[in-house]
This record gives sequence, C-alpha cells and structure tokens, in this order.
Amino acid sequence: MKLRNRAASPELPAGVKKMTDSQEEVGAMTPLQLYERLNAQGEQVRCLKTAKAEKAEIDVAVQLLLKLKTDYKHLTGQDYKAGCPPPENVVNQDNGAATDGIDEEDNVDPWNVSTSNAKGVDYDKLIVRFGSSKIETELVDRIEKVTGQKPHRFLRRGIFFSHRDMHQVLDAYEKNKSFYLYTGRGPSSEAMHVGHLIPFIFTKWLQDVFDIPLVIQLTDDEKYLWKDLAIEECHRFAVENAKDIIACGFDVNKTFIFSDFDYMGSSPEFYRNVVKIQKHVTYNQVKGIFGFTDSDCIGKISFPAIQAAPSFSNSFPQIFGGRKDVQCLIPCAIDQDPYFRMTRDVAPRIGYPKPALLHSSFFPALQGAQTKMSASDANSSIFLTDTPKQIKNKINKHAFSGGKDTIEEHRKFGGNPDVDVSFMYLTFFLDDDEQLEKIKQDYSSGALLTGELKKILIETLQPMIAQHQERRKQVTEETVKQFMTPRPLNFKL
Amino acid sequence: MKLRNRAASPELPAGVKKMTDSQEEVGAMTPLQLYERLNAQGEQVRCLKTAKAEKAEIDVAVQLLLKLKTDYKHLTGQDYKAGCPPPENVVNQDNGAATDGIDEEDNVDPWNVSTSNAKGVDYDKLIVRFGSSKIETELVDRIEKVTGQKPHRFLRRGIFFSHRDMHQVLDAYEKNKSFYLYTGRGPSSEAMHVGHLIPFIFTKWLQDVFDIPLVIQLTDDEKYLWKDLAIEECHRFAVENAKDIIACGFDVNKTFIFSDFDYMGSSPEFYRNVVKIQKHVTYNQVKGIFGFTDSDCIGKISFPAIQAAPSFSNSFPQIFGGRKDVQCLIPCAIDQDPYFRMTRDVAPRIGYPKPALLHSSFFPALQGAQTKMSASDANSSIFLTDTPKQIKNKINKHAFSGGKDTIEEHRKFGGNPDVDVSFMYLTFFLDDDEQLEKIKQDYSSGALLTGELKKILIETLQPMIAQHQERRKQVTEETVKQFMTPRPLNFKL
Repeated sequence: MKLRNRAASPELPAGVKKMTDSQEEVGAMTPLQLYERLNAQGEQVRCLKTAKAEKAEIDVAVQLLLKLKTDYKHLTGQDYKAGCPPPENVVNQDNGAATDGIDEEDNVDPWNVSTSNAKGVDYDKLIVRFGSSKIETELVDRIEKVTGQKPHRFLRRGIFFSHRDMHQVLDAYEKNKSFYLYTGRGPSSEAMHVGHLIPFIFTKWLQDVFDIPLVIQLTDDEKYLWKDLAIEECHRFAVENAKDIIACGFDVNKTFIFSDFDYMGSSPEFYRNVVKIQKHVTYNQVKGIFGFTDSDCIGKISFPAIQAAPSFSNSFPQIFGGRKDVQCLIPCAIDQDPYFRMTRDVAPRIGYPKPALLHSSFFPALQGAQTKMSASDANSSIFLTDTPKQIKNKINKHAFSGGKDTIEEHRKFGGNPDVDVSFMYLTFFLDDDEQLEKIKQDYSSGALLTGELKKILIETLQPMIAQHQERRKQVTEETVKQFMTPRPLNFKL
Repeated sequence: MKLRNRAASPELPAGVKKMTDSQEEVGAMTPLQLYERLNAQGEQVRCLKTAKAEKAEIDVAVQLLLKLKTDYKHLTGQDYKAGCPPPENVVNQDNGAATDGIDEEDNVDPWNVSTSNAKGVDYDKLIVRFGSSKIETELVDRIEKVTGQKPHRFLRRGIFFSHRDMHQVLDAYEKNKSFYLYTGRGPSSEAMHVGHLIPFIFTKWLQDVFDIPLVIQLTDDEKYLWKDLAIEECHRFAVENAKDIIACGFDVNKTFIFSDFDYMGSSPEFYRNVVKIQKHVTYNQVKGIFGFTDSDCIGKISFPAIQAAPSFSNSFPQIFGGRKDVQCLIPCAIDQDPYFRMTRDVAPRIGYPKPALLHSSFFPALQGAQTKMSASDANSSIFLTDTPKQIKNKINKHAFSGGKDTIEEHRKFGGNPDVDVSFMYLTFFLDDDEQLEKIKQDYSSGALLTGELKKILIETLQPMIAQHQERRKQVTEETVKQFMTPRPLNFKL
C-alpha cells in the first residue's frame, strides 16, 4: 500500500529524468533482468545512505527503487524480495491491465494465506503464479470415465481446482500402471476443524475409486521447529489428529499414517531419501521458495526435504518393496504447493518420477473468506468436537452473511451467495447439486432469508459432526497403532 | 599474501588522509566494530564500482578496505570473511607483535588444515583462537593419579595438547560419577592410514583406564553430502572403516559403533535430539562457525546437528536407558572442535550437560608437517594395508628429513628432529621415552644418521602394521554386526 502511494507521488525532486530512462529500459527486460536491476538499485540506495549523500539524491534513488518494484510486480505478479530471484518463465498474465489490482494481491505460502477479497483468494491468478494447470471440465469428465464413478462434489464444484500432471497419472492408470496417494497434516494442536478434513475427505474418495495405497505424513517435527511447543506435545497432537483422520473412514489395509519423529527413527530408507534431497537443494533455493532468512534455524531450512521425501515410493520399502518408480499423487491445499514445486525440481536429478498434484482452495473462516481461521479462536470455525448447540450458536452468531440488512431489503434485492459463508460451507458439505443450486437461486432472489440459509447449514453440519464424533470414539489406541505401524499394504500395482 | 603486499604498497593516490583517520579509529575498535566497519567499507567499494566512479576514488576505497582487513587480522588473528562475524572475546594474543606472522597463520577447520611452518601448526596460538585450555603437566599428573595408570604417550608428549572441562570430568569421576566417550570418523574411502588411528588408539586407552562405555559415529551421511559419492559407497566405507577401528582392540561389551545412515533410521531418540539441536542453531551461526555459503546445499547446513547429537546421552537409550545427564568426553583432532563449540553453546539451552573435549594435534604427512595427507596419494602416509616392503620404501623415499645434505655436515652440525618426519612419527608410535630421548639427542648431535633414524621408524611400523592387519583379518562380519547393533552395554555409571 505504502509502496504504491509513494511511487505515485507527483512531486519528484531533481533527477526525475532517470526514472524515465528506467521506464524505457524496463519494458524490454525479462523478469530476471529486472530483478538484477532491482538488486543493483537497492545497493545504490544503501550506498548513498552510507556515504551520507544529499537528501535529494537519495530521494531520487529511492523513488526509482520503488518504481522498479512496482514494475517488477506488474511484470511477474509477485513482490520483489531480495535474495529471491523470480522463477523461470514467470510472467503476470494480467500484465498490461490496470495496476489497481496490486494491493489486492493474495499472499499464499505454507504459513500464511491472506486476501483482501471477500470472495476469497483469486485462484485463477494463483494458477498462473504457481505455474500449475486448471482442472477443466474435461479432466473431471475423464476421471469419471476412468473410475466409472460420479466425480466427488469437490471436483464437480472446483474446490479442487488446480493440478500438475493428472493427465499423465490417468494415462498410466488406463494402461494398468497404478500409483499411490500421499497427503499430510501439521499437527499444531489437538483441535481440528471441519476445514482440516477437506483433503482427507477427498483423499478417501480417491483411495476408494482408484483402489490404491495411501501414506499420510504428520509433520510433528515441523510443528516443533515452527511453534513454541515441546517435542512430546507435537507428537501427542500427531497421534490425536491421527484419530480424527482415521475417523474419515480410511481402509486400514491400504493406509499408512506416520509421525515424522517416529518414522524417521524407524526407516533408514526414509532418511536416505531425505539426505538425497538435502544434497540437491541449496540454501539459495529454499530462501527463494520459502522466504527463509539467515536468522532462521537450520531445522527450518532443511525441513522441506522431509516433506518432499514421501513423494518417492522407495521411502516406504515395507509398502513398495524398494521400488522407486511408483508414481505419487498428492492431494493438498494449494498453499503446500511450494514444497512440491521443489520436490518436482529435485526428482529427475535423483532419478525419481515427479509427484503429480491436485490442489484444493481454502476453507473460509466463519467470519469471511478474507480472514484467517485460527485453531486458537474457537469461534473462527466449526470444530470436530463441537456439540450440536455450539454448531448452531456459532453459525447463527458468527457466520458472515451475504444477506441484506432488513428482511424487506433482502426480499426485494436478494442476498449475495458469493460472499455468504453459510452458503460457501454448503458448497463444501451438501452433496446434492440440485438442492444446492435451488438454495443459491432462492437466496439470490430473496426468497430464502439468511436465518433460513443458516438453518440448512446447521442441519447439514450437526449430523455430519455427530457422525464423525461417533466414528472417532470407535477409534481405539489399537487401531491407531495398526495404522501407524510400518507394514505391507494390500494392493496390486 | 596478496593482501599484505597490496596493503603495504607505498604509492597511494589522493585521499590518503582517510586511511590515517581509519588507523586512528581502528585502534579503539572492538573486533565486532571493526568487522562492521569492514562490511560498510566493502559495500562502499561495491557501490563505487556500480556507480562507475573515478578510478582514483575506487582505488582509495579499496586501499582502505585492504588496510582494514589487515587491521582485522592483526586484532583478531583471523581473516575477515563477509557474513562471519568474529566470535565473542576473540583477541589475537600476538597483537602488537610484528605483522610478519600474518602470512604464516594456520588454517584449521573440519575440511582444511594448512600451515606454512615446517614444524606444523602453531598449537599454542590455536588454543587461544579456539578458546580451549592447554593440557598442562598438572592435568596429565592428575589423570595418572585418578586412574592409577601411567599416562598414554600421547598425553606425556603433548600430542593431545588441548582440552575443555577435563578437570570437571575428573572431579565428578573422583566422586564416583562416571562418563562416556564419543569419537568418530568420516568414512570417505576404504583406505585408512596410521594417522587415522591416533584418536582411536587414545580412545581405547581412555576406555581401558576409566572402564567406561564408548560410542563411535561414522558420518557416512556427511561424506555423501560433501563428496561426489553414492550413499551405498559411503555406507560401505563406514563398514570397512569399522573393521579397522575394531582392530584397535575395543571392548565389544563397552563399545557401540554406528553409521549415521543406519542409526538415524533405527533410533527415534537420536532423531529427536538432532531436531532439538537444529531448532536452536541458526543459519547465521553455522555460517559464522563453518563458513557455509548460500550456495551450499541444505544438507550441509543442517549436518552439524548430526555430529552434535551423540554428545548427549539420551541419543542412546539402549545404552543409557533414557538418562540425559551422563557427561560425554570427546577425544578428537582439534579440527573437529568447531562442531563441539557449537554443541557446547546449544547444550545448556536444551537442558543437557556440555560435552568435555580432549584435542589432538595433526599427524604429519610423510612429505612434511606443512603438507596435507591425502587418501588418494598413497605416498603421503603409511596405510594400514601397506606391506613391510612398501613401508620401507615409502619411508626411505618420501619421509622428509631434518638431516644435513652430506654425512660430513650431518656429523658436524647434527640433524633437526623438529622438522624430521621420521622422528615425528616415532613420537607418535615409539612408546619408550628413554629410547626416544636418546634418538633425539643422537640425531641432534649428528651421531645418528638419517638412514639410521629411518631404519628405526621402519622397524617400529612394520610389526605394528602387520599386527594391525592380523587383528583386522580376525574381525568377521559377525563381529562388525555385533559392534554396530544398538544394544545395552556392560558398565556401571
């Protein structure tokens, strides 16, 4: 925000000519050239300050720096960050459009997701920025054809909206060459909310329709490194979270769930792959991909290799008998993609196939799609431990409404389902397409009031959560141990 | 070398005044202030070059930079290196002495050891630079008193010359509080030479006289990360090296030898400690200690935690039953000290005792103390696989002599044992103090000729190596497996 305002400042001191020069140059520059020009300009500013140059001279250099930053964002769709060169071939598709959108740019990485748009993150832009592919209707139809099953509502409704190499996975599958699934969770607390279930609900569906093995990584080491938690706590959260994951209905004969703290210490093959990846990724690379700084601990810096390793089948010799060529498909939220961009970059260099990916959009907080859900704020989502009464109260009190201020206005102008959190939640959890479409139309027309919409959501979630709680109760310590023991799985590749 | 010559250049362009200013400033600066001044000056030079300033102006800035670097080396005893701030309290003891010594400064880190002095590295200077303590006669006498054994020749002759907290270890031992030993080796090839045995010969003696458990780490993961080798090769070297180590006579009931690739994958407790250390060390720290750069792979950057972890007893629950308070004593060559300075810094912050250390000097190459031994140069040392004939030929042909050019001169002026490699080797391997002293005197006086000195060394090493080979032959795969299996050891703490 600051940046744009200052760059647009009309009163420029002497030396403004330089800026015009730069504008001309910039037009012909590649993202990398512009990045290097920015580095040099940053150094120029620092050196003028060090040399205690005239204020006017420093101001000109700073103005030019800001101008170049704006150009960089315009050209690449990304913020300039020292030490983070632009990825190859990155070009902002909206290049040439009004720069007004810049302040509304979404921020998406494994630790932060934010947007200023009430409809949530702009996923089309994200696909361009990340260089992945959109899940088109054609791909959804193909999955239906290959599996003979109606596509999951997350596919029908674009909740899983982006992919890498999914066609290649299906090509091989059609030739009887199977694959395995890998997903995971960072166990930062005992409390999981409905949003945390999205990748697991979808992964279970994939396991069922493709009839394939699945590995689920619980990154308790990551949470220890990033949070102010003891190792024992993180490990306990991993085991507790495993119970909720198991309650999603995974097949114990086809599923291996592991805590990093446990599995690293029980599989020499897993550690070998971690070190192999760590040998082929430099600090410069993780700095560019994840934004690490020199003050970060060496555990964070080397961690990405640990999230990468399960993408390779020989990390699980008990399952794949040492085969390193079994393709991996990773269903995950799009914010995890940086890990797997890195993994895909490393894979061919260490002789392994690149993992394919299916990316989901984010699950919105009750307060709206531009706010962040927080496990420490019980009112920011519906938790898997909530009672029917808590569910009812939270939705009635906190779910952001796209309705009008008065019943009269609402009846007259209708509500806006695109920003209404109750409606968004229904797109995630109400499976009946026709019913959902009718709700949308009735809400948009004003026939359906906000209170009535909320009631439908409450009546959808209450039994869903109650059933989850019932299934979780049936998950014994013995069952958890079974899922979490390295062992052969039952499948044919 | 370059640096000193250029800094001393008499013809200075305009602007020389600045240098005088700097000289005045520098006198009052702490190492850290001078380091920061150097950073700023480096930036100034870069910025002048970027701005394509006048050559004379750039020259002045460069001269000042070189001058500051010389001052820095003079003040701290270390080369200035961007990104590597000086350690706390580092001050060159020789500060004020002639700067002629600068070019003869020794270079000692885990990957490089070099000196221009024929007598070898200046260990007294190293003690000051590293902040360790000298092993005085008093400490050697105390070890004799506590153990009731004649001190090992490596102690009697100052081959182990430096320590950290050894008095504290002995204080506790006298109060019946025992400790354990930890040493290791980086298995970069199958070939080991006699110099590689020094820490193991001494560690075996410590194990015998204190009757304590020992862990030996083979860092096959480190060698994979640093060298152009496959994981399987590094692991094979580890197992082959283990045979030579076992042949030193360690007690299988008190010794655990492990490959990192194996043990990481079989001990969740070891991995937990590695991650604990990795959480408490930043990239800035390892950059300062080990000189890593941003182009280094993330495996190298996080590796120091893996060499640190065996310093803590709960990394070995099979041995210490989960106790985390058993003190560790690490006998190692002084070049490994940076790892353990880091470890000792971390220890109190994660609730563990600091490991104590005993540092050895370096074993010289046959060609002289200032050249590096190389496993790829068969003539640079005596290998454990050498035949009696090879030993004889190598010593006669390659062992650097401190004798005079002709017999007549030698008889008249005597030889110099301080630079004579055959004599140095005898200080390592000839146990009889009186005999050694007589050889020294006879060689110095000229009574003993170089050929005769070499003959004594040959007759000392031939049976020693033959016996080692005999013992190694008796080390079966079964024995190796026994040493390398995590298991309880036989001792009382």
